[in-house]
Amino acid sequence: MTAETGDPYGIRAGETQLPFDPATRATDAGLVFIGRIRSPWTDRSQCPKNLRQARETGATATVEIDAPYRDGLLGLEGISHVILLYWMHRGRRDLIVQHPHHAPRPKGVFALRSPVRPNPIALAVVKVLGIDRTAGTITIDAIDCLDGTPLLDVKPYYASTDAVPDAVVPQS
Amino acid sequence: MTAETGDPYGIRAGETQLPFDPATRATDAGLVFIGRIRSPWTDRSQCPKNLRQARETGATATVEIDAPYRDGLLGLEGISHVILLYWMHRGRRDLIVQHPHHAPRPKGVFALRSPVRPNPIALAVVKVLGIDRTAGTITIDAIDCLDGTPLLDVKPYYASTDAVPDAVVPQS
Repeated sequence: MTAETGDPYGIRAGETQLPFDPATRATDAGLVFIGRIRSPWTDRSQCPKNLRQARETGATATVEIDAPYRDGLLGLEGISHVILLYWMHRGRRDLIVQHPHHAPRPKGVFALRSPVRPNPIALAVVKVLGIDRTAGTITIDAIDCLDGTPLLDVKPYYASTDAVPDAVVPQS
Repeated sequence: MTAETGDPYGIRAGETQLPFDPATRATDAGLVFIGRIRSPWTDRSQCPKNLRQARETGATATVEIDAPYRDGLLGLEGISHVILLYWMHRGRRDLIVQHPHHAPRPKGVFALRSPVRPNPIALAVVKVLGIDRTAGTITIDAIDCLDGTPLLDVKPYYASTDAVPDAVVPQS
């Protein structure tokens, strides 16, 4: 479907599709879902579009780790921030150039944090409010994904290599 | 194999295996490899263990994007840093508690950046030295993975949400 049909998740002018759908070719490696993210957002129309918007709502969220993986939280207590990797399972994967509503012109997917990408892995650096290793939960300050979004990984955030405060992006 | 056998990639004292191997269950979602990382490291014994060590070598590296995905670089020119997601295809996936050589005691996988994890997706924030959209290459300041490591994603680094210079990790 295209913009002309009014589908908000279709293809807009200036956007480019891959000649194939990565979803049907996604056999180079396989993932396990290790839990899920519990957020207040149950509908795509109300879900914040990014982490900044999510923080502005003031709503916290919870990361749920499935039972077999809970020992993986050992030694994480006391950390201030973690990196979450989660699977944007609702998005298409075949738009290599996209034209977000907020942008003056189309951009390549690698210049965007859009959930629509060949491998729809989203990444968020979040503040840890609490960890319950027995329950397998991490309470976090905010998140920008739908309730129930599959979790792929949790990593400790190291300011020494992950924080680049003076990083710059090109003018859009 | 265990530490007693001398296998450096086996299980050490204090480490815990999952009751199953995620590699054989990895069917919740599938990945496409969109390119590869060209690094100077062709052997595991010489490969830097992390990005800090990689930077200390002074060796640059190159991200190669396969032809169908190269338009995804549109609009990335001029960016200072990107986030790379890559697939640590040589590692096992079933160690949920690990005892790295540098650590005084075992830690859960979510408290480590070890390539051994249920979903072996590695993440690096790297400095961009050059982008050639036609050739599909990004030259970067350093990387900590073997030559030929499969590439999953490139994301723009936004200091506003990705940089947390005062983030702290617990004492190990």
